[in-house]
Amino acid sequence: MKLDVLSFSTSTLRSSLPGPLLSFIEKVAPGRTSTQLSVLEQHGRDESGRPAVAPDLVVYPHSTEEISQIVAACNEAGTAVVPYGIGTSLEGHVAALRGGVSLDMVQMNHILEVNHEDMDCRVQAGVTHRQLNQALRSHGAFFPVDPGADATIGGMASTRASGTNAVRYGTMRDAVMGLTVVLADGRVMRTGGRSRKSSAGFDLTRLMVGSEGTLGVVTEVALRLHGVPEAITTAVCEFKAMKGAVDAVTEIIQCAIPIARMELLDEVAINAVNAYSKTTLTAAPTVFFEFHGTDLGVEEQAKLVGEIVEEHSGTGFQWAATEAERARLWSARHSAYWACVQLRPGAKIVTTDVCVPVSKLADCILGSQREARDAGILAPLVGHVGDGNFHMMLLIDPNSSDEVMKAQAMVDNMVHRAHSLGGTCTGEHGIGQGKLKYLEAEHGRVPLDVMHALKAALDPNNILNPGKLGSDPDSFAPSAPQ
Amino acid sequence: MKLDVLSFSTSTLRSSLPGPLLSFIEKVAPGRTSTQLSVLEQHGRDESGRPAVAPDLVVYPHSTEEISQIVAACNEAGTAVVPYGIGTSLEGHVAALRGGVSLDMVQMNHILEVNHEDMDCRVQAGVTHRQLNQALRSHGAFFPVDPGADATIGGMASTRASGTNAVRYGTMRDAVMGLTVVLADGRVMRTGGRSRKSSAGFDLTRLMVGSEGTLGVVTEVALRLHGVPEAITTAVCEFKAMKGAVDAVTEIIQCAIPIARMELLDEVAINAVNAYSKTTLTAAPTVFFEFHGTDLGVEEQAKLVGEIVEEHSGTGFQWAATEAERARLWSARHSAYWACVQLRPGAKIVTTDVCVPVSKLADCILGSQREARDAGILAPLVGHVGDGNFHMMLLIDPNSSDEVMKAQAMVDNMVHRAHSLGGTCTGEHGIGQGKLKYLEAEHGRVPLDVMHALKAALDPNNILNPGKLGSDPDSFAPSAPQ
Repeated sequence: MKLDVLSFSTSTLRSSLPGPLLSFIEKVAPGRTSTQLSVLEQHGRDESGRPAVAPDLVVYPHSTEEISQIVAACNEAGTAVVPYGIGTSLEGHVAALRGGVSLDMVQMNHILEVNHEDMDCRVQAGVTHRQLNQALRSHGAFFPVDPGADATIGGMASTRASGTNAVRYGTMRDAVMGLTVVLADGRVMRTGGRSRKSSAGFDLTRLMVGSEGTLGVVTEVALRLHGVPEAITTAVCEFKAMKGAVDAVTEIIQCAIPIARMELLDEVAINAVNAYSKTTLTAAPTVFFEFHGTDLGVEEQAKLVGEIVEEHSGTGFQWAATEAERARLWSARHSAYWACVQLRPGAKIVTTDVCVPVSKLADCILGSQREARDAGILAPLVGHVGDGNFHMMLLIDPNSSDEVMKAQAMVDNMVHRAHSLGGTCTGEHGIGQGKLKYLEAEHGRVPLDVMHALKAALDPNNILNPGKLGSDPDSFAPSAPQ
Repeated sequence: MKLDVLSFSTSTLRSSLPGPLLSFIEKVAPGRTSTQLSVLEQHGRDESGRPAVAPDLVVYPHSTEEISQIVAACNEAGTAVVPYGIGTSLEGHVAALRGGVSLDMVQMNHILEVNHEDMDCRVQAGVTHRQLNQALRSHGAFFPVDPGADATIGGMASTRASGTNAVRYGTMRDAVMGLTVVLADGRVMRTGGRSRKSSAGFDLTRLMVGSEGTLGVVTEVALRLHGVPEAITTAVCEFKAMKGAVDAVTEIIQCAIPIARMELLDEVAINAVNAYSKTTLTAAPTVFFEFHGTDLGVEEQAKLVGEIVEEHSGTGFQWAATEAERARLWSARHSAYWACVQLRPGAKIVTTDVCVPVSKLADCILGSQREARDAGILAPLVGHVGDGNFHMMLLIDPNSSDEVMKAQAMVDNMVHRAHSLGGTCTGEHGIGQGKLKYLEAEHGRVPLDVMHALKAALDPNNILNPGKLGSDPDSFAPSAPQ
């Protein structure tokens, strides 16, 4: 049996950069290239714990125009190009499987415009979501998509990221109004527009969102913003048992209460958070709620939710009394990944990211927890459960082949469980390398062949983040047990 | 100068169906084909008033499997296939520019499943939105996307349609969770899933939504539904001047009040509606509002909107006192197109569909109204103004070349005006034949070339609704004045 929970089995065809290409790129981005080994390694690795697969060169471009020139030259040379945001992806998205050039977007971090009248903005791809929200404060606006890591907007668009606010405000699919994209041959494409809707042609914006750098390099992103609500309140509520917590969440969604955030943590995750963020939450299945609206609206939502919670043996709300306390709670929630890493020194985290129809959430969570218990794997759970999406973080000793095998089986089984319940192998992390093998089971063969045909049409030389999404399905179809 | 406001100038390469193909199709759909001239003509025409371009054969398939067989055979023969919903498109979408087979979906009108726990459903493409809502009543659910005509869900998905509820509930882009699509070579592709979000691969669902039958034939659609709100209230409010009405609407959107519907009609449209639907509204710029929510929430929204309306010299709300009166008001609004047709007997309507950022709505509406007045064209206005989208219906004598020319210039200028304000040539009607020539001005050349590359990748023999979206941009680029 092949184990790929912490590795990647495709052979990597490496080649160092042709000299003329290197000189050309150094001329386009003078003083902004690196071939230093540690820099290369860093750019071939994300937070998934997979081993680095380094590019041959890292470039720090300043503009769409520079990227256009670099990509065109790489296309001529048949050299791979891998866009790099801030390296917080979780499935080995940035590994340079065929070497080539890593485009680090860190210096393309300008907020280009904010239109507060229409609640939209345009940013360079290297802007992070926290940086953007900082800048939006003076406009009375905010950008709701908030993965735990302070990822770049370009990376978030590329993985169709979401976070804690998606239940109310949607994911990057909904947030992105338009893009500037450098295509494989260096042409610059601008998609979308500033109107709230349009029926003018194929939805190239949505085709690019979630394509993980395999169809083009995202250089600018236009985003829909939201007004800061008149009232925001946060409460924490613990439950006697996981089933009650999930049932409450499901009922709240089914009642269409416009809740802004609804995050579940199991008792293991709560213990980790308490230790890491110095909170004093009771070790029990716990839901963090947040309500956005008018004063009256928020009060009414909280009352309705309170009634549902009570029916499912939840304690009353413990309200965050101050803005500082609210911020502290959400910071603790956002740090859950790092908190969980600390639970077992020396362990590696294998992340999971299934998402199912909300009515199936209890089945999926309880089945997965049972399996972790049976396998003896420590697996704290956190989840954007309003969307039917949750993460179990499998804490394993990377040197124990037994644990690695058990984790691999758990990941496979969780994905299978999600599929059998009508769900997906990834709610928000994306495919990268780690989820390629589940794509056929999820979609069937025809959609995969279509993705491959689209990739071939837009990137005939296969230079854009090769070996990932859009690859020939035969290259990553699940192999027979070995 | 070429006039295409009521015609289409591309030469149509017609060829009757090869005998063996015809026999094959008759075997696949026995007794469900027609070559009767009136039936062929009817299927080559929509509500745009453009002359019919008839197919060679009309088929009424019963299943995805039948369509798969028919499309595969047409692909082998190089024969065009044009999907046909109910013929309510407004830009000549269904014209069989290269003859071939029209697939009439009317008999694929089964609602396949309704999951009220997760508020989603799956329907065959020929189900209409009113039929669906009728069936959803017993589930306490509704499907919000409501173009004026009782269009099919397949057609609505194909044109990325919207309607009066989009300001709150989104368009078909947001409503479609997944599709079953027959590809050009007959392969059946199922896209999407039942979870509320996913990052598993290219967004093939969104690529198909709005592709107007040029990338595949939509045979089934999975839709997100919504719970019927606890409270629904409707009010009508008239304004002293158009500017006040639009400014009020803009401010309501900018305040992010979660209004469900906000429809503007000018005094000409109100007169038409009064005559057609026997209403007694005052002839003035008028906004129809609808509020969805809890009892308290609806009351609060109405109060906030009332204050804004008053600031802009709106009269107070005239509330629809009963459910029947509410239904009557919206039925009157939905019949506005037909009401306006009656304003000038013998006239043809040239529809428009621009959409701009909400902050630019007043500029766009007032500029367009001024132009209509100056040209002496009767042009009632209705609009989904919460989205920045409005329609002016130009009522012209089709036999007057002067009026036809004026209308053509008005359409061109409206689109140009919308583009210069950051908007789109079509908010919800789609491209069909009529808007092809504006695509390059709207998107630039690169996106059009990309659309063409995608079309070529998925439909290499160019059999799917040929001559429309995804065509070689050189074939419809605006020609020099002749």
